[in-house]
Amino acid sequence: MTHDQSEALVVGIDFGTLSGRAVVVRVSDGAELGSAVHEYPHAVVTEALPGSGTPLGPDWALQVPGDYVDVLRKAVPAAIAAAGVDPGRVVGIGTDFTACTMVPTLADGTPLSELPAFADRPHAYVKLWRHHAAQPQADRINQLAADRGEWWLPRYGGFISSEWEFAKGLQVLEEDPEVYAAIVHWVEAADWIVWQLTGSYVRNVCSAGYKGIRQDGRYPDPEFLAALNPDFADFVSKIDQPTGELGARAGTLSAQAAEWTGLPAGIAVAVGNVDAHVTAAAGQALDPGQMVAIMGTSTCHVMNGAELREVPGMCGVVDGGIVPGLWGYEAGQSGVGDIFAHFVRRHVPPDYVDAARAGGISVHEHLTRLAARQRIGEHGLIALDWHSGNRSVLVDHELSGLLVGETLATRPEDIYRALIEATAFGTRTIIETFTAAGVPVTELVVSGGLVRNKLLMQIYSDVTRLPLARIVSDQGPALGSAIHAAVAAGAYPDIRAAAARMGGVERGVYQPDEAAAARYDELYREYRELHDHFGRGGNTVMRRLRAIQRRALTEPAPAGDELVTR
Amino acid sequence: MTHDQSEALVVGIDFGTLSGRAVVVRVSDGAELGSAVHEYPHAVVTEALPGSGTPLGPDWALQVPGDYVDVLRKAVPAAIAAAGVDPGRVVGIGTDFTACTMVPTLADGTPLSELPAFADRPHAYVKLWRHHAAQPQADRINQLAADRGEWWLPRYGGFISSEWEFAKGLQVLEEDPEVYAAIVHWVEAADWIVWQLTGSYVRNVCSAGYKGIRQDGRYPDPEFLAALNPDFADFVSKIDQPTGELGARAGTLSAQAAEWTGLPAGIAVAVGNVDAHVTAAAGQALDPGQMVAIMGTSTCHVMNGAELREVPGMCGVVDGGIVPGLWGYEAGQSGVGDIFAHFVRRHVPPDYVDAARAGGISVHEHLTRLAARQRIGEHGLIALDWHSGNRSVLVDHELSGLLVGETLATRPEDIYRALIEATAFGTRTIIETFTAAGVPVTELVVSGGLVRNKLLMQIYSDVTRLPLARIVSDQGPALGSAIHAAVAAGAYPDIRAAAARMGGVERGVYQPDEAAAARYDELYREYRELHDHFGRGGNTVMRRLRAIQRRALTEPAPAGDELVTR
Repeated sequence: MTHDQSEALVVGIDFGTLSGRAVVVRVSDGAELGSAVHEYPHAVVTEALPGSGTPLGPDWALQVPGDYVDVLRKAVPAAIAAAGVDPGRVVGIGTDFTACTMVPTLADGTPLSELPAFADRPHAYVKLWRHHAAQPQADRINQLAADRGEWWLPRYGGFISSEWEFAKGLQVLEEDPEVYAAIVHWVEAADWIVWQLTGSYVRNVCSAGYKGIRQDGRYPDPEFLAALNPDFADFVSKIDQPTGELGARAGTLSAQAAEWTGLPAGIAVAVGNVDAHVTAAAGQALDPGQMVAIMGTSTCHVMNGAELREVPGMCGVVDGGIVPGLWGYEAGQSGVGDIFAHFVRRHVPPDYVDAARAGGISVHEHLTRLAARQRIGEHGLIALDWHSGNRSVLVDHELSGLLVGETLATRPEDIYRALIEATAFGTRTIIETFTAAGVPVTELVVSGGLVRNKLLMQIYSDVTRLPLARIVSDQGPALGSAIHAAVAAGAYPDIRAAAARMGGVERGVYQPDEAAAARYDELYREYRELHDHFGRGGNTVMRRLRAIQRRALTEPAPAGDELVTR
Repeated sequence: MTHDQSEALVVGIDFGTLSGRAVVVRVSDGAELGSAVHEYPHAVVTEALPGSGTPLGPDWALQVPGDYVDVLRKAVPAAIAAAGVDPGRVVGIGTDFTACTMVPTLADGTPLSELPAFADRPHAYVKLWRHHAAQPQADRINQLAADRGEWWLPRYGGFISSEWEFAKGLQVLEEDPEVYAAIVHWVEAADWIVWQLTGSYVRNVCSAGYKGIRQDGRYPDPEFLAALNPDFADFVSKIDQPTGELGARAGTLSAQAAEWTGLPAGIAVAVGNVDAHVTAAAGQALDPGQMVAIMGTSTCHVMNGAELREVPGMCGVVDGGIVPGLWGYEAGQSGVGDIFAHFVRRHVPPDYVDAARAGGISVHEHLTRLAARQRIGEHGLIALDWHSGNRSVLVDHELSGLLVGETLATRPEDIYRALIEATAFGTRTIIETFTAAGVPVTELVVSGGLVRNKLLMQIYSDVTRLPLARIVSDQGPALGSAIHAAVAAGAYPDIRAAAARMGGVERGVYQPDEAAAARYDELYREYRELHDHFGRGGNTVMRRLRAIQRRALTEPAPAGDELVTR
């Protein structure tokens, strides 16, 4: 195919946990002409600060904001070069980011970690989404909000996450008040990067809503915050900022950013966005009932709804959280692909590894092939997929995995399949909870690394009794950002129109088999009984085991030498 | 050391599941002078009959009686040769056998399987203890006995096993009435081998009591049996026979058996016995409160009590079942060492196997060393040790394994330790049930392959808060049989006196550590809550999963080819 070499292009940039990816996309049809990835030099900082070596506590996860700018400087020019196009054709940039990832800054957006006075202060650094050390603060926020019956709490399924803006901010206040006092803006990285591109700070409604407890244009009131901590009463002043709708233009590319990226100064820069939410556009999944599932190490679910409903255990519902004019719902499963990876790494014996190698396939594929030959229920197992806790609909990270039914005849492929089924049952639980709350789900639109596993896909379709559509692009978030860039540049009137031309989805790739679905119904009943027993207070053994474990780890470890065999 | 080359000797023979072991023992002090093992040529017949190739159903397990005679012909002379002694010094033979292992015979003891007319009939063969195909019959026996309130049922903890004489006999009647009609004697292999040695049939009180529902000299009455099946009414005529007490002389060595064994005709042959029960004498563990635990792939517990008590979930209580004059109690855990073996085979990854190999140790020892360095509760796990079902105290072979608490940080040694702890909690459950029923346990006397694992032993001592004694002999059953031979030969007045001279035990090898015991109390509470929830009807998911599994296995298996990855 040949195309007009003067056609307009956009650049979408997806800022992930370990790297940023830039994709050059044609505005007319969404063709991805070139892409490049830049790995963050500092990756995720979990042990000690770079430079000073200041040690971090357990569950900390920081990043270095300069790494994000490096993506603009490296990945964008590399993607243009890979596409072999004239950068002068680029009419807009869109970005998406992990969330909730927070940058503490001065009034001008300078990250505190870049000031010599704060370079050795952990709280001056970016708190990555998976920084989980603010759980005590989150617990207090939830308890107090529940006790006071705060009106906004049901918008978050009843629980505010330790990952979000308020819990992380409260942790800074209580652990390093000097850093807290120095923070002028507590900025979502999704907005900070747009600030770097344009020179002005616009807060995107998506992050503000899902992660910043902004609802109906308001935040939690000062009385609530003061009850958490008197010095927290004015916290909202650090996060409040004029907001921009998704797909709107946040500003234009600054001279500085033009120099970094090699793109023309003055082109449109879209309002920031979150990686999961931006992907819906790439899959043309913008109608109510179309649930997008981005399935990787974990799974994130986003879906539009025409009306506001309070879904127990969802992550949140935000007006315009996915596209303007609809209520955007979010839910998630905190462990999916990482559970399978853990199983392969820790529980698969040498004969299986050898057989996979001999067949020239991965252990995952070897196990999948063996599991695909099984009849439903033949393995006699039920698992709970809570190895990383449960995000939706229980919102409890103290939960843990469970396997019931193992006998001396149980084989690795049996457990592997039971784990796949467990994650499918987890998805069905979310779908049923949405539907019961008046937000019906009619289609699953899948994306992410796990969609390559056909057995897994068919199981999901059978278990949920839903047809599965697959997002065509392997770079869904970056393409989604490019779509938003095209809208911001005025090439399309809105996200929906842009997605219709630039996005792509294969419909009905998997269809539920009713006979299989009926078999899974039996297993799902068992899953739900265990789910409710261990997740809703019937037996809180998982929480007690965590407490016992934490206490044990504070005690001296035995040498153990006197107890070895013989 | 030199000893009088004219001192009296005895031979003990332990008939196991796969082989028989003969040991030559000095009467004066129990010194083991030589031993030899003979593997059964037909081992365990589970797929098809030898010769005819007649296929067997699932859960069948047969043996060939000629294999037992081969042990007399091969292992006994080999043991004498190994000891380098004059066979003329041997004054007695004692034997023990697996149970309940049943031989269908003519009036003269000829096994039906040796008759050409029945050589291709599966029910004409020996039914090994682990033949589990009579579960439907056992279920009916238990239901009817419970409905009728049969007085003997509580003597078996409330449940008759599918492994025992009545269930197996009823299966023969209902599946092959011709063979059933031809059976004159339905003989415990423990008694059949003595019959081969002496030429006369004496029924030992141990097998008769534990496996044959003989209580207070009576059997279940004909009305009960007729209610199971009208043709079963006279079943007792096939098992009833004059009984002999343990340690008594069943008869003298026949000329035929003297020729087989090379031992002098006319020497004493002891009444038959069961492998677990005979071991108590080898460990001098004959007093009330001394619980003998023979710990291998499974664990068998035997203990004397001064009084008759009904212990829920025990295997049985029999007057003189271990030694005359005391009530012998039996309990068991159906999976112990085989659970660890299954874990090592199915769930340990290559890096662990390589590390063990590099260290020149077994994977079991490698995992044990890693586990020994852990603080109690550090792994955050609780397991239920039901991979082979539960013998005591739930008596439910439809139960299965459970693991709760796994996270992405869980390592193989964590689960290995949790499984060890689970079996210790299973033992504590049995001990507490005995104690609560008025049969207190004050010491654990251990034997079997698992006693080499010091970590496991210390965990058992801590979990049960009991001192552990260890039987000195590695050949406890064979030594126990030799002790009974010495009593039968008149060298000692009774088993207790013989055991005091010939047996051996190390007392207090492990002592409970109170701080550790207190930690385990916490975990044990969790174990018991899960135990009762899944084992006593709170959630019968394990039974339902088995039913789903059985049904699935009757359906055609999918090719699965269309569902492999990519």
